[in-house]
Amino acid sequence: MLHIYTGNGKGKTTAALGLATRFLGHKKHVCIIQFMKKNIEYGEITFFKKIKGIDIFQFGTPDFVDKKRPKQIDFSEAENAFDKVKDVLNRHNYNLLILDELNVALDFELIPIEEVVPVIKEYKDDLEIVITGRYAPEEFLEIADLITEMKEIKHYFSQGISAREGVEF
Amino acid sequence: MLHIYTGNGKGKTTAALGLATRFLGHKKHVCIIQFMKKNIEYGEITFFKKIKGIDIFQFGTPDFVDKKRPKQIDFSEAENAFDKVKDVLNRHNYNLLILDELNVALDFELIPIEEVVPVIKEYKDDLEIVITGRYAPEEFLEIADLITEMKEIKHYFSQGISAREGVEF
Repeated sequence: MLHIYTGNGKGKTTAALGLATRFLGHKKHVCIIQFMKKNIEYGEITFFKKIKGIDIFQFGTPDFVDKKRPKQIDFSEAENAFDKVKDVLNRHNYNLLILDELNVALDFELIPIEEVVPVIKEYKDDLEIVITGRYAPEEFLEIADLITEMKEIKHYFSQGISAREGVEF
Repeated sequence: MLHIYTGNGKGKTTAALGLATRFLGHKKHVCIIQFMKKNIEYGEITFFKKIKGIDIFQFGTPDFVDKKRPKQIDFSEAENAFDKVKDVLNRHNYNLLILDELNVALDFELIPIEEVVPVIKEYKDDLEIVITGRYAPEEFLEIADLITEMKEIKHYFSQGISAREGVEF
């Protein structure tokens, strides 16, 4: 089945990670493919790297991606990430596949949506696929089984407080 | 700081659990207090029980709580859970405290909101407190630093598919 966590609120990636702990508790296998890796030591990566039953593959660069003018490396990293997705789906080794920030990679047009949709459609009945990120494309909303919009009602960033270890990364 | 994850969509508890992995990765300490435990072997509990740095306390009964006519045990379990919250906050042993389904316990009037708000207010600057559940009371929305509404856009339950291991529990 296909789950989408989208919207401007906090909790999209963390909801996917929480789902990973649920699967791991049932001795199921989890794969996380991150499309827009940044240069931060994310707590969850440090944590899950020590855990059996979960594999994490990171793509992207530490640099900010300029939506209007993405670099060649942004395209090639997204393409590599999507190649990994196809490879992972083809091997049928996992019960849960998290495609973190794929929505954003598609919104930035780093990979063509026409190539992604048929792949997701082909495999989504074999395992749980979770796609996170703002700006979920209409095409995913049509084929998704579950869509949650994380809607920001109130946020301390708007009060001038910056990102904190453990909370944002 | 106080985070609230509310709304009718999927991902409230899992977002809190994902935040727990983020904290654990930074070697911080996490406590989860569950107010409305059910009789299901939740994957995340099995998973986190093996992990160092996180403690989980469960309250409630396997039975469905009738909002119109809660049983004596529903009240006493909620009271015990809230006593545990006060005890935990008082000891200052944790960096992240997750109060799972507290919103629902309050909506069901199992504990009085007037008793809960001053406690949360007193401690919320000392650590991260995350409260999950539908129907977040107005009083929390006022004092919260971050509020995300998980809004259900589409759900397969409405297509007659029932809860599945790993995904819902």
